[in-house]
Amino acid sequence: MKIGIAGLGYWGPNLVRNFQAQPGCDVYMTDLDDGRRAAGARRFPAAQLAGNYDELLERVEAVALATPLSSHFELGRRALEAGRHLLVEKPFVESAVQARELIALAESKGLTLMVDHTFLYTGAVRKVRELIDQGELGRLLYFDSVRVNLGLFQHDTNVIWDLAPHDLSICDHLTGVEPLAVQACGGRHYYQHEDLAYITVFYQDQLIAHFHVNWIAPVKVRRILIGGDRQMVVYDDMEPSEKLKVYDKGVELTQPEEIWRTLVSYRTGDMRAPRLDGTEALDRMVKEFLDCAATGRAPLSGPAHALRVTRMLEAAELSLRQGGRRVELTELNQ
Amino acid sequence: MKIGIAGLGYWGPNLVRNFQAQPGCDVYMTDLDDGRRAAGARRFPAAQLAGNYDELLERVEAVALATPLSSHFELGRRALEAGRHLLVEKPFVESAVQARELIALAESKGLTLMVDHTFLYTGAVRKVRELIDQGELGRLLYFDSVRVNLGLFQHDTNVIWDLAPHDLSICDHLTGVEPLAVQACGGRHYYQHEDLAYITVFYQDQLIAHFHVNWIAPVKVRRILIGGDRQMVVYDDMEPSEKLKVYDKGVELTQPEEIWRTLVSYRTGDMRAPRLDGTEALDRMVKEFLDCAATGRAPLSGPAHALRVTRMLEAAELSLRQGGRRVELTELNQ
Amino acid sequence: MKIGIAGLGYWGPNLVRNFQAQPGCDVYMTDLDDGRRAAGARRFPAAQLAGNYDELLERVEAVALATPLSSHFELGRRALEAGRHLLVEKPFVESAVQARELIALAESKGLTLMVDHTFLYTGAVRKVRELIDQGELGRLLYFDSVRVNLGLFQHDTNVIWDLAPHDLSICDHLTGVEPLAVQACGGRHYYQHEDLAYITVFYQDQLIAHFHVNWIAPVKVRRILIGGDRQMVVYDDMEPSEKLKVYDKGVELTQPEEIWRTLVSYRTGDMRAPRLDGTEALDRMVKEFLDCAATGRAPLSGPAHALRVTRMLEAAELSLRQGGRRVELTELNQ
Amino acid sequence: MKIGIAGLGYWGPNLVRNFQAQPGCDVYMTDLDDGRRAAGARRFPAAQLAGNYDELLERVEAVALATPLSSHFELGRRALEAGRHLLVEKPFVESAVQARELIALAESKGLTLMVDHTFLYTGAVRKVRELIDQGELGRLLYFDSVRVNLGLFQHDTNVIWDLAPHDLSICDHLTGVEPLAVQACGGRHYYQHEDLAYITVFYQDQLIAHFHVNWIAPVKVRRILIGGDRQMVVYDDMEPSEKLKVYDKGVELTQPEEIWRTLVSYRTGDMRAPRLDGTEALDRMVKEFLDCAATGRAPLSGPAHALRVTRMLEAAELSLRQGGRRVELTELNQ
Repeated sequence: MKIGIAGLGYWGPNLVRNFQAQPGCDVYMTDLDDGRRAAGARRFPAAQLAGNYDELLERVEAVALATPLSSHFELGRRALEAGRHLLVEKPFVESAVQARELIALAESKGLTLMVDHTFLYTGAVRKVRELIDQGELGRLLYFDSVRVNLGLFQHDTNVIWDLAPHDLSICDHLTGVEPLAVQACGGRHYYQHEDLAYITVFYQDQLIAHFHVNWIAPVKVRRILIGGDRQMVVYDDMEPSEKLKVYDKGVELTQPEEIWRTLVSYRTGDMRAPRLDGTEALDRMVKEFLDCAATGRAPLSGPAHALRVTRMLEAAELSLRQGGRRVELTELNQ
Repeated sequence: MKIGIAGLGYWGPNLVRNFQAQPGCDVYMTDLDDGRRAAGARRFPAAQLAGNYDELLERVEAVALATPLSSHFELGRRALEAGRHLLVEKPFVESAVQARELIALAESKGLTLMVDHTFLYTGAVRKVRELIDQGELGRLLYFDSVRVNLGLFQHDTNVIWDLAPHDLSICDHLTGVEPLAVQACGGRHYYQHEDLAYITVFYQDQLIAHFHVNWIAPVKVRRILIGGDRQMVVYDDMEPSEKLKVYDKGVELTQPEEIWRTLVSYRTGDMRAPRLDGTEALDRMVKEFLDCAATGRAPLSGPAHALRVTRMLEAAELSLRQGGRRVELTELNQ
Repeated sequence: MKIGIAGLGYWGPNLVRNFQAQPGCDVYMTDLDDGRRAAGARRFPAAQLAGNYDELLERVEAVALATPLSSHFELGRRALEAGRHLLVEKPFVESAVQARELIALAESKGLTLMVDHTFLYTGAVRKVRELIDQGELGRLLYFDSVRVNLGLFQHDTNVIWDLAPHDLSICDHLTGVEPLAVQACGGRHYYQHEDLAYITVFYQDQLIAHFHVNWIAPVKVRRILIGGDRQMVVYDDMEPSEKLKVYDKGVELTQPEEIWRTLVSYRTGDMRAPRLDGTEALDRMVKEFLDCAATGRAPLSGPAHALRVTRMLEAAELSLRQGGRRVELTELNQ
Repeated sequence: MKIGIAGLGYWGPNLVRNFQAQPGCDVYMTDLDDGRRAAGARRFPAAQLAGNYDELLERVEAVALATPLSSHFELGRRALEAGRHLLVEKPFVESAVQARELIALAESKGLTLMVDHTFLYTGAVRKVRELIDQGELGRLLYFDSVRVNLGLFQHDTNVIWDLAPHDLSICDHLTGVEPLAVQACGGRHYYQHEDLAYITVFYQDQLIAHFHVNWIAPVKVRRILIGGDRQMVVYDDMEPSEKLKVYDKGVELTQPEEIWRTLVSYRTGDMRAPRLDGTEALDRMVKEFLDCAATGRAPLSGPAHALRVTRMLEAAELSLRQGGRRVELTELNQ
């Protein structure tokens, strides 16, 4: 498979490195910036350099976009129209309308379309998904995520589009149900983009998801709590080992129709930190893309998932612009 | 000073113990429940037992209410009308209307009215306030609080009225400015009261405060982040020592009107965990009440503070009932 | 059972409180110091006060010593000679010779003799013992303990006699084998007693135990590592919950007679924090004493255990005085 | 400067990479193993490959040895005899005799001789040294180091020679005084080399240093406590940030000639985590070597330091072989 990486800034070189490590993979690459193209050529002497995006498209069978968000739709459309499989760096595109157009295009051409939601390919998220599928957590009650740190300010977007795609993607993958509505609020303290924000996503049956994303926090926290009515999970990505802890804890109501305190009890059992698959997530993601492109099967982070994440992002942005109003996802369907 | 404690359930005995420890303080106590009155008499042989609230009122100069929230207004009103100074366990009362009535009554009679917002009297909160007053944190950007645990479900109220008074009180005390609006949402997973909730409080100049309160979390977290534009604070109440950490960290914009990445830089200096006064907070609170009752000066957690906290609670409850609508605090003024 | 507590300093009141909580237990108490006797009478109005130790002995069936170490042997001997069951606060006595005399006396009179090695009665140590008994850890390889903090300096003894009894007792209880030799060294930085020390205990088959005790450390650490060839344990007593973590980790040698690197592999499985019994250890200890006195069975922390701990302490002290020489425990038998 | 790296196993490539990054540095490299030479050539196309050590010596001005310990003396001797500056991977050589011979040779030829004790060049160790030099810690009381983990077993040496050079080097650099004696003990559980060991180093004036090194621990700990009589330090290398914490804590004796408890008090002030220089330690180390080779000045981890570390290692090994006997360092002088 000949694969072309467009964009050699922060993330592109990681894609080059990982695609190069796959057997039978020829890597091409390009960037608008002459300096970055030259640096890429020095760093990856075995990769082919294309002078521009058109030249890249001509020489490859699949394209990976690691360019700024605002270019994803246009570059992606050209790739699909040229009959190339398409991998897009997160966030996917700027709106559900754009997402649907690319998805329809990929479908009509029988091409693989996938978004690099890398976290879905980590050992931790895969293990939580396995626990949920096996019924270990029981009914999901809530998903609570905190991803905060000092920096790195993005200049073309706010903290929601920068950090929340990770957690919205994890949440969507784990809950596996359709979101109903989104609310968001935030603060702008340094320039016109929000540097911290809170997002709430509402689902049926009182399932609620909440996200705190923040570029101006003094400490680095990346922690997700997942409450089920059988067990609960803490996924702390800052832990060097034991990132995942499963708590056999819960609430027991003897007669839930009554509400006196004596009938509520708390169950506490063992905590377990399951061993996680240590494979590099990016390697798994790249393999998923190559395999889907080769076989035609739907990728884990494929169109349906990417569309749901994009709709939540768009709804969060809309809520943010409208004073924190609750935005029903059906509003975005027109 | 003769002080009467009404309510000998969970918190009342702590008040008895602390008032007894003050020199010149005679403690009286009562409870509606015969068993609790008898247990109180065994545990505190030196305290006087009153058969009921009326008898208590007759015998004392000041009253402390450690009864359920729903009784605070009525019992408080009777105490003030009888000319007794009044200390009320948090949360104060159920609405701003009730709060204003008690406050007006206390003022007209020249009596001390105070709410036991204990956290204001901890070494940690007092130190943060000192840092803010000295300008060490600079302009406040955000206040983010997480108070989660498994249990203890309250039966007459939801998690907001149970846990959020602590954090709203801390936030109000530290920011020292008037809140503008409140938004809240939550989930009910076991019976009719919310067991988890998120509250956002909006202030002027992009200052934003956010609160996560949760009765069904697998781990106990009590952590507050406070972002200032000079320094930032992490207050982790679960730490056995070094509860407070002050980070000399921040963002520097060389030319804030421009937005190119190269002009944003991040400053990282020392972290410092200041030594905290280890006096028991409850002892300080009790002394504050006695001193204010004796001198007539306004208590730290007096009427103005208690009213602001009550208004935020009421606005949060209203928002919760109305689909997470942003509730302006001016709406509560009628 | 009538039980008399001698010594109302730091630990004695805990014994009074716990014995009082046992059904059918009448508590008597005394202290050499008039002030402490008076304070005890105020704090425990239901307990009987004896004017001195002789009077105490006359009125009770069993005695608990919470007096300074140097008095244990003499007071214990008098209690046993008077036909009283005997519970001694740790450390037991000052030498193996003293220990053997008291043990022989108790045996000849058919009396219960027990040392308050409280840690053996904690949920954590009981769980580790259970894991070891079930073969979960496999063959024990090492026991490594760190117990350090700032203060509280003892005046009549060094840090070994103050802190190490806890860890030597836990180690002896868990390993369940006879120690062979002891080495110790330390430092005296403030006055004539060591304020920090390291002790090593040697067993058969390369089992090794090591203890770091320290009164002048800036942080409080109470952590024990136990290495088995099947699983390993970390027991961190400073953790508010999950004090015990069991790691399914180990080393696999494919052909142990060969030593090439490719044949060594490392096994990593789940970590598990088993739920621990939350009963107060002191309550369990007190019940053990009462039950053994009533039934005549041997206590968990009875003569055999207490003697082994005393011998290790005496050997450590001897090693410390002789430049860290390895002291064989057989040397103490004469 | 033309620099030749011998040994392209685990550490050698790090040296190649860092020397290549220095301006004006031409890197040559070799390895006994054909496969490793070929892999090195692929990975570092800009470096020159030498067929063997003799060829390497001919082409360079300085040599860095990243070969197994047993070869250091012989390869180092040949380099110095050939007039090449010499950098040796830790541990330096197998005995003080070998160390002295190489040092004398370097001196007689006017060549730079330095050992890669990388930790001395970290921001953390440099900051502690600065604090000590400024008198911030006061008189040093103890140095306590724990470096434990699961794996990586070395096949030609025990855990002391593998892990302890790091901590002995840090300790020697920070204390800056001559060690008097060494004691060591350990356990062999898998094959003929110790997989865990404890080392104690004795200095004048009750200064004591202790080291726990362990290949078979379930958790990774790299923590050093340093007690001074003014302040104390915790250096935790596993912390992602705030690796260094300085505690303003101590013991105050009002009348040190008396020993009653009331005269001992404990001082607790702020804790401070100073900002650390984030430069890569290896880069600093490499620059130090190049600069010393160019100017002739003595390196930080030069002959005197390297000899002291080697003597402590040799004494520890001797003690280990002789039942934990206290080995005076003067014994090694013959």
